[in-house]
Amino acid sequence: MRARSLLCISTAFCLTLIAHSVAQARDSLPSWNDGPAKQAILTFVKVTTDPASPSFVPPEQRIATFDQDGTTWVEHPMYTQFIFAFERVAELAPQHPEWKTTPPFQAVLTDDKAAMAKFTMKDLETILVATHTGMTVDQFQDIVKDWLAKAKDQRWHRPYTDLIYQPMLEAMQYLRDNGYKTYIVTGGGQDFVRVYGEQVYGIPPEQVIGSALETQYIYNKEGQGILMRPPKLLLNDDFSGKPEDIYLFIGRHSKVAFGNSTGDQQMLEYTQAGGGAPLMMIVLHDDAQREYAYGPAQGLPDTKVGTFTQALYDEAKSKGWFVISMKNDWKRIFAWEK
Amino acid sequence: MRARSLLCISTAFCLTLIAHSVAQARDSLPSWNDGPAKQAILTFVKVTTDPASPSFVPPEQRIATFDQDGTTWVEHPMYTQFIFAFERVAELAPQHPEWKTTPPFQAVLTDDKAAMAKFTMKDLETILVATHTGMTVDQFQDIVKDWLAKAKDQRWHRPYTDLIYQPMLEAMQYLRDNGYKTYIVTGGGQDFVRVYGEQVYGIPPEQVIGSALETQYIYNKEGQGILMRPPKLLLNDDFSGKPEDIYLFIGRHSKVAFGNSTGDQQMLEYTQAGGGAPLMMIVLHDDAQREYAYGPAQGLPDTKVGTFTQALYDEAKSKGWFVISMKNDWKRIFAWEK
Repeated sequence: MRARSLLCISTAFCLTLIAHSVAQARDSLPSWNDGPAKQAILTFVKVTTDPASPSFVPPEQRIATFDQDGTTWVEHPMYTQFIFAFERVAELAPQHPEWKTTPPFQAVLTDDKAAMAKFTMKDLETILVATHTGMTVDQFQDIVKDWLAKAKDQRWHRPYTDLIYQPMLEAMQYLRDNGYKTYIVTGGGQDFVRVYGEQVYGIPPEQVIGSALETQYIYNKEGQGILMRPPKLLLNDDFSGKPEDIYLFIGRHSKVAFGNSTGDQQMLEYTQAGGGAPLMMIVLHDDAQREYAYGPAQGLPDTKVGTFTQALYDEAKSKGWFVISMKNDWKRIFAWEK
Repeated sequence: MRARSLLCISTAFCLTLIAHSVAQARDSLPSWNDGPAKQAILTFVKVTTDPASPSFVPPEQRIATFDQDGTTWVEHPMYTQFIFAFERVAELAPQHPEWKTTPPFQAVLTDDKAAMAKFTMKDLETILVATHTGMTVDQFQDIVKDWLAKAKDQRWHRPYTDLIYQPMLEAMQYLRDNGYKTYIVTGGGQDFVRVYGEQVYGIPPEQVIGSALETQYIYNKEGQGILMRPPKLLLNDDFSGKPEDIYLFIGRHSKVAFGNSTGDQQMLEYTQAGGGAPLMMIVLHDDAQREYAYGPAQGLPDTKVGTFTQALYDEAKSKGWFVISMKNDWKRIFAWEK
């Protein structure tokens, strides 16, 4: 302590020094078990932020991208945004009496699980158009906000924004603390995620990239310009759409990317193609106890949500991507867990 | 000085205090003449960054958007990106002997000004497709970089990146110094501007929004993923495209916006619609001596570049937007001027 006291030539400098020591001692990833995944994140940050390292990344190039569904929050048994859409169908039904006898709405309204399991892409599209379009962007935001405030999931009976993975929140914060700009890059709706992204992930709307409708700037009766949501998809931010949209929105390769399914494969490839010492990680859902276990890479059935195939597993192994085992690598999955 | 000395309880605090005093005394907008335009910018920053002000804007909402052509650099007599395209036609001509006798290339190759003046949108599109598409995004960036390094404008015989308006650079820096995130929102090509945006404006690629092609993520012969530029427009970032793309990329209204033509009208309206105490400014090209004078609002001929119409002028006046007179409001136009 004597050496430190001598260095404390001013109160401000002294406080800085102590804060630095505390930060050094603190575990930035307390919900991660010690193991190769945690170590990979720590090493990545170390080698890309140390100016003396050959893999040093200048601050303006520190870009981190995270898939959402299945990577930063629960996606099983159904994407949250589809649950929103289905519950919205029920809410809108009184204004559409014909839905009672019209597929695919009929199946949703009668909770016909067998029929819903057989929904085609066209069926889902019909439901998304009915629930996501034809209003202003502000109206849509309010609808999502209201829904999130009252909706609960069926297993834990908690708000959906409680189903965020605590280890991923820590990884995001740790990267930000080291100068990384964190982005969500999701196949889900950009507008949907932006409603809660800042509050839940600490990620502002301009750093949420996702599938997006065209919007249309028109004038209302009062001559005021408003942004409408017509039923026209502009960006399908999944598979090859992910690198395409990262290029469109950011214009540089991400240096670290987290995914969990074949829909993230191209984003991870694109991250690796950026050179340096990039980090690519994939979450494997192998914890039936605390969350869910699914996906062909484990010999388990494919699901309608993000698919972790054997081919993706093999690509990960051959290219040096890290597979995060929820069961082994995560000490705690949710913030509210004991 | 006695009061200040008493306050200097630590070296660090003392230095902070002195730095603050120096900043107060410095003119942040030295290339602006004193007048309503300069005052509007100073007032805007004051009322939106003072926590005690009713118009205070929280840091995360401090978004500033700037049109480019005619607002932050010279657009007359032709958009720089068209000059690039035309010079690129000449460069590519040896590989396309048929262009010598094929319109619209023929007119460009023979420098037939009369024919070029009559170019239709279709002609320009043909030239843009031939010069901007069919390569990877990295190849396109290199082509633009190489061109910018050697191309000179015809009036001042300087690199095009020297034709940036110094007062606008100061406004950008002043806004950034006060927590504003500065964006370019241009009808020009997003990829084109991103090549020099960081160096010239201090604006990183992720804060350059512009017209954009679709890109296509495909695998090359080596199995490496690459981003190609097919001839398909994704975003036309002009007129109503500006608020649409600000919403797409940023997800919030800008609090201050600078434009110079009818193509910026909707961006300024959208800024105003965000509420608070927003600032909308339009550059009037009324300085034939030091730059150019053009546009119907001055009874001068319309041009092929950004059009400042009488209607836009009237809208500005009625809505409280500020018109920046290059002649009267700008002490200096370019950094290299005496």
